[in-house]
Amino acid sequence: MSDSASSRLAAYYEELRQHHLGPLWNSIGSMMTPEPSPRAQPHLWRWVDVYRYVMEAGELVTPDRGAERRVVFFSNPGFAGLEPWGWGALTNTLYAGVQLLRPGEKAPAHRHNQSAIRFILQGTGAYTAVEGERIDMEPGDFLITPAGLWHDHVHVGSEDMLWLDCLDIPMLYQLGVMFFENYPEYNHPITHPNGYTTRRYSASGLRPIQDHDRTYAPQAVFKWHKTQEVLDQLTQLDPDPYDGFAVEYINPATGQAAGITIGAMMQKLVSGQHTKAHRHAHSAIYHVFRGDGATIINGVRFVWHTGDTFVIPNWAWHEHVNTGSNDAYLFSTNDGPVMERLGLERCEAHPENTQRVEREFDG
Amino acid sequence: MSDSASSRLAAYYEELRQHHLGPLWNSIGSMMTPEPSPRAQPHLWRWVDVYRYVMEAGELVTPDRGAERRVVFFSNPGFAGLEPWGWGALTNTLYAGVQLLRPGEKAPAHRHNQSAIRFILQGTGAYTAVEGERIDMEPGDFLITPAGLWHDHVHVGSEDMLWLDCLDIPMLYQLGVMFFENYPEYNHPITHPNGYTTRRYSASGLRPIQDHDRTYAPQAVFKWHKTQEVLDQLTQLDPDPYDGFAVEYINPATGQAAGITIGAMMQKLVSGQHTKAHRHAHSAIYHVFRGDGATIINGVRFVWHTGDTFVIPNWAWHEHVNTGSNDAYLFSTNDGPVMERLGLERCEAHPENTQRVEREFDG
Amino acid sequence: MSDSASSRLAAYYEELRQHHLGPLWNSIGSMMTPEPSPRAQPHLWRWVDVYRYVMEAGELVTPDRGAERRVVFFSNPGFAGLEPWGWGALTNTLYAGVQLLRPGEKAPAHRHNQSAIRFILQGTGAYTAVEGERIDMEPGDFLITPAGLWHDHVHVGSEDMLWLDCLDIPMLYQLGVMFFENYPEYNHPITHPNGYTTRRYSASGLRPIQDHDRTYAPQAVFKWHKTQEVLDQLTQLDPDPYDGFAVEYINPATGQAAGITIGAMMQKLVSGQHTKAHRHAHSAIYHVFRGDGATIINGVRFVWHTGDTFVIPNWAWHEHVNTGSNDAYLFSTNDGPVMERLGLERCEAHPENTQRVEREFDG
Amino acid sequence: MSDSASSRLAAYYEELRQHHLGPLWNSIGSMMTPEPSPRAQPHLWRWVDVYRYVMEAGELVTPDRGAERRVVFFSNPGFAGLEPWGWGALTNTLYAGVQLLRPGEKAPAHRHNQSAIRFILQGTGAYTAVEGERIDMEPGDFLITPAGLWHDHVHVGSEDMLWLDCLDIPMLYQLGVMFFENYPEYNHPITHPNGYTTRRYSASGLRPIQDHDRTYAPQAVFKWHKTQEVLDQLTQLDPDPYDGFAVEYINPATGQAAGITIGAMMQKLVSGQHTKAHRHAHSAIYHVFRGDGATIINGVRFVWHTGDTFVIPNWAWHEHVNTGSNDAYLFSTNDGPVMERLGLERCEAHPENTQRVEREFDG
Ligand SMILES: [Fe+2]
Ligand SMILES: [Fe+2]
Ligand SMILES: [Fe+2]
Ligand SMILES: [Fe+2]
Ligand SMILES: [Fe+2]
Ligand SMILES: [Fe+2]
Ligand SMILES: [Fe+2]
Ligand SMILES: [Fe+2]
Repeated sequence: MSDSASSRLAAYYEELRQHHLGPLWNSIGSMMTPEPSPRAQPHLWRWVDVYRYVMEAGELVTPDRGAERRVVFFSNPGFAGLEPWGWGALTNTLYAGVQLLRPGEKAPAHRHNQSAIRFILQGTGAYTAVEGERIDMEPGDFLITPAGLWHDHVHVGSEDMLWLDCLDIPMLYQLGVMFFENYPEYNHPITHPNGYTTRRYSASGLRPIQDHDRTYAPQAVFKWHKTQEVLDQLTQLDPDPYDGFAVEYINPATGQAAGITIGAMMQKLVSGQHTKAHRHAHSAIYHVFRGDGATIINGVRFVWHTGDTFVIPNWAWHEHVNTGSNDAYLFSTNDGPVMERLGLERCEAHPENTQRVEREFDG
Repeated sequence: MSDSASSRLAAYYEELRQHHLGPLWNSIGSMMTPEPSPRAQPHLWRWVDVYRYVMEAGELVTPDRGAERRVVFFSNPGFAGLEPWGWGALTNTLYAGVQLLRPGEKAPAHRHNQSAIRFILQGTGAYTAVEGERIDMEPGDFLITPAGLWHDHVHVGSEDMLWLDCLDIPMLYQLGVMFFENYPEYNHPITHPNGYTTRRYSASGLRPIQDHDRTYAPQAVFKWHKTQEVLDQLTQLDPDPYDGFAVEYINPATGQAAGITIGAMMQKLVSGQHTKAHRHAHSAIYHVFRGDGATIINGVRFVWHTGDTFVIPNWAWHEHVNTGSNDAYLFSTNDGPVMERLGLERCEAHPENTQRVEREFDG
Repeated sequence: MSDSASSRLAAYYEELRQHHLGPLWNSIGSMMTPEPSPRAQPHLWRWVDVYRYVMEAGELVTPDRGAERRVVFFSNPGFAGLEPWGWGALTNTLYAGVQLLRPGEKAPAHRHNQSAIRFILQGTGAYTAVEGERIDMEPGDFLITPAGLWHDHVHVGSEDMLWLDCLDIPMLYQLGVMFFENYPEYNHPITHPNGYTTRRYSASGLRPIQDHDRTYAPQAVFKWHKTQEVLDQLTQLDPDPYDGFAVEYINPATGQAAGITIGAMMQKLVSGQHTKAHRHAHSAIYHVFRGDGATIINGVRFVWHTGDTFVIPNWAWHEHVNTGSNDAYLFSTNDGPVMERLGLERCEAHPENTQRVEREFDG
Repeated sequence: MSDSASSRLAAYYEELRQHHLGPLWNSIGSMMTPEPSPRAQPHLWRWVDVYRYVMEAGELVTPDRGAERRVVFFSNPGFAGLEPWGWGALTNTLYAGVQLLRPGEKAPAHRHNQSAIRFILQGTGAYTAVEGERIDMEPGDFLITPAGLWHDHVHVGSEDMLWLDCLDIPMLYQLGVMFFENYPEYNHPITHPNGYTTRRYSASGLRPIQDHDRTYAPQAVFKWHKTQEVLDQLTQLDPDPYDGFAVEYINPATGQAAGITIGAMMQKLVSGQHTKAHRHAHSAIYHVFRGDGATIINGVRFVWHTGDTFVIPNWAWHEHVNTGSNDAYLFSTNDGPVMERLGLERCEAHPENTQRVEREFDG
């Protein structure tokens, strides 16, 4: 291109920019990539760091109205610099953080169109209340808070409680549709008897007759001892080649993901178990509930231990290995339901079953 | 009408009949009734009778190829005279019977487009095999055999076993679409390990990852001890006004009825409990698993005891009462899924909550 | 079997019968046939006969309250003897008849949970009103009256009008769920402007914004000139091997069959066109709108001419041929939507493409 | 807060940032707003500007492999500064631009998991080919290119052609799942006869029998003369209070939006017509096909003329008025299907029916 042609083009592009217009022929390569190139990167956070900062937050702030919750959230390095707050993105669509509630504290009641799930990490004595149902929480429990329902957290015990929250905040931020409302009182009244869910959904395939037409998740909590029992039973059968011994948390009224937009899974890997590699359109957040091992993501080896959190972005190859001598339990949450509802899900097995490890993740 | 007009009309009607034609203006009242007027009638069969004939069948026939199964089935008096065999109708759409399998016997493998469910009444030691899964059976267990899957029954124990079978035979008969096929061998090979279902579906809301896209019922059996535990838990909460403490058996992969065309429910009534009356478009077959009580159907009181079977036809008012001193357990199966899929379901509460009893059913 | 064994068995069977019980091992062969063996038989009615009796009905009866409609309906020979009135069955699930409305007559307003469709045969000047919409009728028009909507017929013109009605009467009769209600007045008021449907749905794929969430059929009429135009267009493309140039009438709001339980189709066969044979689980009623030809059903050749009506029962092999020198137009209606909703549909191509003709149907 | 507490907190926040962590209590207000606060702003582009730059692009670039298409796209000012290229966002989820194809040019064949729709603005002589179907384009035509199908553009005529493209590029960018593939040849072969869609879908509610089970959009083009005819018919009936005389472009096989993720609508406003104001969760892009008028968006008045393009972000109040003396036609496209599939749609009527105009948009 001649100098004059080139400078004419530069002037043209600048004019376009000033008129809030853009040239597709120049930008198509970066906007429509051959394969997913998500902003979210694979990353891992050590529990020792997360725990230290969460506990320090316990000294610095209280979960009162306005602050709402004492949560240290994970911020994907790929979203650094995006205001506000990297959009709370851990994967492109999902937010996650660790919440601390101390004895005697209460986090106020609110509701929002974001869907939320929680996975309990440490402590006892606190409950989450969802639309009048008190849900006592213990380590390993999985809770679902469907979009649009009032919820708050109350600690009536004596030990610090920590749990993982996951919401579809970044997706709703990007879609431009967020609704959030405070309950007029600090807490919502409890209207259901204790243990409501666990009494109503204590076995598979048996739905209380009153829930015949219900669609939003009627099972508010999935207790750890049940989950573990199911995984122990599955361990006597064949593992899934890509996920090991694994269950999805589902809405028993519909068979769909527990949240409309958020899926969740618990995987067990026995000592030495090494899964095959695959990749899928959906992204996932992993939290190591228990165990020691490693996950290879796009050729990079992420070593993990109990309490660590890591990210598998969209379409990243991944395989897991339990390098410890005990069973490992990996909790994960994902945006699979979004991909399925929008016709975007796809999945691929690695042609060589496992990846070549190119380097170690070093933080 | 004059005599000549009248005889002209009679001749006209006769001509129509000969030409395989009919006059709607004459027949509309009987073909399009203001409210449902099902051919099936309310009726009750005493266990003592049923049991006697089933056991006598144990002497007379064996469940071999061709005979297939040793079942004494219930034949609704309203369908008497309809060939063949009153169409096997207990309600307008559903067939049910009591099957006997004796130690050492085998009922051959076949498959059909009828959906089947089974509810176990007495004995131990036999199993049903469905598409390679062995399902050991105990009293109170509920089994589902989805349409189109190979299944057979094998007795490896030492006690007579009796169970209730329910299929949508009359509906498929009337729809004109029945497919039935024998397996080339007498029995289908067992390809799954023992306890496959109970290991895979041992808690509510947790679905093995391999079943993510499955639609037909992946839970082959619902064990009685689990069902009872759920009902005991529900007993601490509010009963349903029409059904007492009750659960539906559902397909945990879809949240729909366990069978595409057949629903099923287990109800517990505590001593003295008397439900409110309602009626619905769908029909139901009840089997008294345990207890003593009565059901008022369209003003007629049907007293029941353990083992009795009775019918609630479409749109019949009904209410239940436990007149015994122990908990009563009522198993029932219904065509609610058909009504829902065809847009025909409707439900109505009795305006006075309970019916006036006009007479006792006396067989 | 010895004489005594044989007489013991006979006594046993008789006892069973008296107790409203039946022996499955004896009856399974007739109740669960290897392939569909529907009660409905292939049959054909000549227009000359049908027309004569319908016109004679014009002398004998008027479509007043109680009589409701002046319709001569088709009664499948396979249902002869079943009271009442062979259940109005033309196929196992569908009723059809020819209605006559004379100048100045009105057929009163009612509603029912049966779905109805109509296909106009002769005349002009009458309209059907559905829930306040006046639908003027011309030969070749297809009308849908969804279950539960008020409807009546009014003749404001000067020519006898004849049309084909098709309803799911036998299916609802057999399911045991019929609701029928008279409108308090003789006619329902007209609340929509003239030509409501044709103004709202005058092109494919364009839905009035007000119907965004509507589910029941918003398109009340499909005009013949449009249908013919579409078929003429299709004639320039490849025919369907089994159905020729054919369109289904669908609900443009949902893409499903126009009625929840009733499908309908218009087929065009050009002179000499001979389709391949297939069979499907669903049954169909055919009406020859125009043309001369033949349909081979299970090896029997049914010759047809304009105005004739014939039946293809479930799972019957069938192929069509236009033996005339003009285009033939075959209207048909079927229970495909029921089969699909209940998971019962299946379809098979004839292994030799066409059947060997074994005999001619001679009435 | 004391100085030391304040500096301790600042240090803590900085440490968090360095560890890729964030404090929810500080950020929740900006990440979870009470009501939608989309990044996309209301904005309007004048046709005179857009046209000038598009035509200048005609001098500067050709639509060859790599550049793919000669499109000047709209870049929402709210996304300025976001790399790359403001993500191509016009609303938070949707991209749109004006494409120019000149006589003799060809834009190469590719496919992608983005859904695309096109609305033709000027010229004749070019066609879009989708999976072997040639779709000739004229002003006012609406075309759909479902995700995953091969498509290219070819100009065989003699006039410059311009059209509006709309894709879900920003949404897929943000979801992190983009797939894009070049066809091995420059163009994909044409395998269907000319006028395929218009011959197959030439009337409402009539679906070619071959499309019985099809789910992705079978109707590739919606011709302007048909759309205009439908709108003229609707003009004789009552307008929608918020949208005037309006139709949605839908998939006639499913009744859903023409694209899985993209809805589209054509609205007609007669001279002087002023709609009521409402707001909805979904966002929309408007293009003035013909006419003069104004749209008030969140109290700001956007005056428009033929060819202008403007944006209604999520949850923005909006009402339209035709201030000209001729009919106005507004084409629009939206992300309503996404909101509905994810359970996020909601809609609200303005309490006072119309907004108070606070200022004029001045570019
Ligand atoms: Fe919350
Ligand atoms: Fe995975
Ligand atoms: Fe069977
Ligand atoms: Fe009931
Ligand atoms: Fe009627
Ligand atoms: Fe057919
Ligand atoms: Fe493209
Ligand atoms: Fe709007």
